[in-house]
Amino acid sequence: MAKNLPVFTLKHFLVRSSVIAGCGSQEEAHVSKKKHLSISLPSLDTTTSTGIEAEAEVEDGGERIINLDQHIVTGLQLTFDISFCHIIVNLFFHMAYFVDFSPTKPSVYSNLERSPRCMLVLSTRHNGGDPTMYEKYWQQVGDKTTIVIPGWQSLSYFSDVSNLCWFLEPEFAKEVIRLHKVVGNAITENRHIVVGTGSTQLFQAALYALSAQDASEPISVVSAAPYYSSYPSITDCLKSGLFKWAGDAQRFDKDGPYIELVTSPNNPDGFVRQSVVNRSGGILVHDLAYYWPQYTSISFPADHDLMLFTVSKSTGHAGMRIGWALVKDTEVAKKMTKFIELNTIGVSKDSQLRAAKVLKVVSDSCEPSSSEIECFFAFNHQQMDMRWKQLRVAVKESGLFSVPDFPPQFCTFLGRAFEPQPAFAWLKCEEDINDCEGFLRDKKILTRSGKHFGFSPKYVRISILDRDEIFNLFIHRLSKIIS
Amino acid sequence: MAKNLPVFTLKHFLVRSSVIAGCGSQEEAHVSKKKHLSISLPSLDTTTSTGIEAEAEVEDGGERIINLDQHIVTGLQLTFDISFCHIIVNLFFHMAYFVDFSPTKPSVYSNLERSPRCMLVLSTRHNGGDPTMYEKYWQQVGDKTTIVIPGWQSLSYFSDVSNLCWFLEPEFAKEVIRLHKVVGNAITENRHIVVGTGSTQLFQAALYALSAQDASEPISVVSAAPYYSSYPSITDCLKSGLFKWAGDAQRFDKDGPYIELVTSPNNPDGFVRQSVVNRSGGILVHDLAYYWPQYTSISFPADHDLMLFTVSKSTGHAGMRIGWALVKDTEVAKKMTKFIELNTIGVSKDSQLRAAKVLKVVSDSCEPSSSEIECFFAFNHQQMDMRWKQLRVAVKESGLFSVPDFPPQFCTFLGRAFEPQPAFAWLKCEEDINDCEGFLRDKKILTRSGKHFGFSPKYVRISILDRDEIFNLFIHRLSKIIS
Repeated sequence: MAKNLPVFTLKHFLVRSSVIAGCGSQEEAHVSKKKHLSISLPSLDTTTSTGIEAEAEVEDGGERIINLDQHIVTGLQLTFDISFCHIIVNLFFHMAYFVDFSPTKPSVYSNLERSPRCMLVLSTRHNGGDPTMYEKYWQQVGDKTTIVIPGWQSLSYFSDVSNLCWFLEPEFAKEVIRLHKVVGNAITENRHIVVGTGSTQLFQAALYALSAQDASEPISVVSAAPYYSSYPSITDCLKSGLFKWAGDAQRFDKDGPYIELVTSPNNPDGFVRQSVVNRSGGILVHDLAYYWPQYTSISFPADHDLMLFTVSKSTGHAGMRIGWALVKDTEVAKKMTKFIELNTIGVSKDSQLRAAKVLKVVSDSCEPSSSEIECFFAFNHQQMDMRWKQLRVAVKESGLFSVPDFPPQFCTFLGRAFEPQPAFAWLKCEEDINDCEGFLRDKKILTRSGKHFGFSPKYVRISILDRDEIFNLFIHRLSKIIS
Repeated sequence: MAKNLPVFTLKHFLVRSSVIAGCGSQEEAHVSKKKHLSISLPSLDTTTSTGIEAEAEVEDGGERIINLDQHIVTGLQLTFDISFCHIIVNLFFHMAYFVDFSPTKPSVYSNLERSPRCMLVLSTRHNGGDPTMYEKYWQQVGDKTTIVIPGWQSLSYFSDVSNLCWFLEPEFAKEVIRLHKVVGNAITENRHIVVGTGSTQLFQAALYALSAQDASEPISVVSAAPYYSSYPSITDCLKSGLFKWAGDAQRFDKDGPYIELVTSPNNPDGFVRQSVVNRSGGILVHDLAYYWPQYTSISFPADHDLMLFTVSKSTGHAGMRIGWALVKDTEVAKKMTKFIELNTIGVSKDSQLRAAKVLKVVSDSCEPSSSEIECFFAFNHQQMDMRWKQLRVAVKESGLFSVPDFPPQFCTFLGRAFEPQPAFAWLKCEEDINDCEGFLRDKKILTRSGKHFGFSPKYVRISILDRDEIFNLFIHRLSKIIS
């Protein structure tokens, strides 16, 4: 079997993890380290073509499975899910960085991807959508965001004992404030900043902080459907006596206090949102993970009591696991800090320091005086714009699907109006296709059914933040599914 | 007031956090950047003296408050707790690193510490004990553990999709296995490694994984007193319907399933432990955070079903927030991974990569062939040995206290027998002092009462892992409290 595994030419880098099943053809067994991936973005003749280069699909032969928004698929699950052969592209991609530190995409990825006989699991991803699209920008920026951490640094649990959030690195806090000022998407004055291990931890910290410790029953947690599919499972994970998932906010009719989660722009459908329950006793948590100019117009600086943000969706650094909350009420900020103290005794200093550097470069890049590198948001706005144009053309060519239409809004940051171009496509299967996820799975496109978002299975959520090659392959495949 | 704040000479580094109350005398207002702290370790004539240099106490004048194991004290609390003036040494210490990157301790710390009119909050610390003692070793090692992370690295959520624990960095896993092999303190064969945001998160992941989702009532969680004081609050933090703190394992007499936490060596008292309940339906979690040769003899490679470790206590890098579990059962490892996915969507890649480098240097330093740097464990074993000798002399000189006596055990790693020298001193106030914490607070030593550990308030827990200067000051102060 080994001779069928091109991976073994990689000096046994993959000893622990590569062998899931037999894979590949003999002629693919060499791995050139000189040849780099060159998937160019299509020209944007959006009236006549999807604009995707044909080469990928020719070599793909329609046999690969594209995982665009499934739950995490681990090696163990793969053995049941995927037949014939398995190559974990994500793994190769990262291993290849160790082989070749050039800032372009590594050749190993390109070569494996071209294997005509392999069905590829073209990256797996979490509910949140793996934001690998952003690698391109950060590669171009080069060393500006490189961080050097000496071994004797950050041994203490503490970052700033004079701060209510004692594990918050002052440099990170400073850059958070600066970035919001540069973008104009949130007010930071008279707010406490609470840092979290991603905004997921901060969401739980907020639930803990906003629940009454002595209540006779858990407080209801609601969000208007379609809602982020992880809200219910995170809320009810430990069967807490403090809070309990109560479903779609639009159908919520229970008396008493509640917490309403307002995600704006919304995950999964991308629409700008406001609270829907509007009853006394309600407490709002605003998840503003996607309120950045690459996705949506910045209409005003958000000014809510409790706002959540994350680097995963703002800069693309999901692997850092860094999020932040802007919190008006001191007691709430204290209780959130207490939760994170109990949950993980603070937040990685290394990642906070790295995040501080990344946010600084983002702010620098968008200052009017900056000319060295292109503004992060302008660059990635353009990427998203192209992707949504491609997607809309593919949807039109197919005739079997639809995606939401959004009204254009003026963006104070970019100084012009545009339509939202969300991180996810909320794709609807038209005609008599009731199980859109199953339908696309048959076409070797793995997505996430609308039913997980408290909505109809005629919908699926699809990540728009993958690497060019995977996105292009998906667009091409979608356009060929003709009604 | 500003002229009384020497901190303002530090180019306004401390704008956000320094001013808690007026502090310092005018003559202290200059900050020399050339003069470095030089607290030398005492000679170990343990029969006649505590061996502490007198200078610190002379300049201290007995006015500072030494916080040796209190709960976190934030700036907001300080204003109520401490009178006259407040200087947050931890903050200065870390700020100073930014001013002066020399590997020796920064001068700002030394200068502020010498202020005769200031009561110092000499570092605050979490229940776990802030392991800043280890800075000395890592400063000596220099650049060997320096890590460089480019901005385009680690954007994905995923580290290794072929691994059950999909967010585990392969390099970190490799170094964990190697370190356990070098030290001989745990068996890693046929185990899954689950990485966590510190072992605190892994402890919760274990509770989640070992609880039945459909049980009629939460499973009891017990540990023999004195137990780690955070176990109850972490377990009951969210009033989970899956598990519930049930107190001292020695008094546990409820029928049905239970989870027993076995911390060995034990926090707070340092004794080697085994399970005490020994009934059917029991599931054991072994917290082996302190099973390293600087603290205790390595008698055998631990071979339990579920073992927890953390870099905070092994290498001293508490700020990284990295721990790991060695898990025998695949389903348990899967559920632990699921918990961490729901809780924080994985673990900081930056910190895992940094931890991998640190563990590698530790292993390298202790290989028989290594001559360049002293073995990490040998060096810090020696530090702990000196500190415990000093502590025992101070306790003897005072006559008011006692600390546990431990039988010596043969250590397979160091090749000789020695008495345990735990990370904490479990200090008992003798005679008629019933509130040991209150008694020491009056002497300006902040500790943590035995009552938080399910034990008598005649005991307190004191961290032995602080920086030399603070530890020496504590020893000197203790020896002067005469019965």
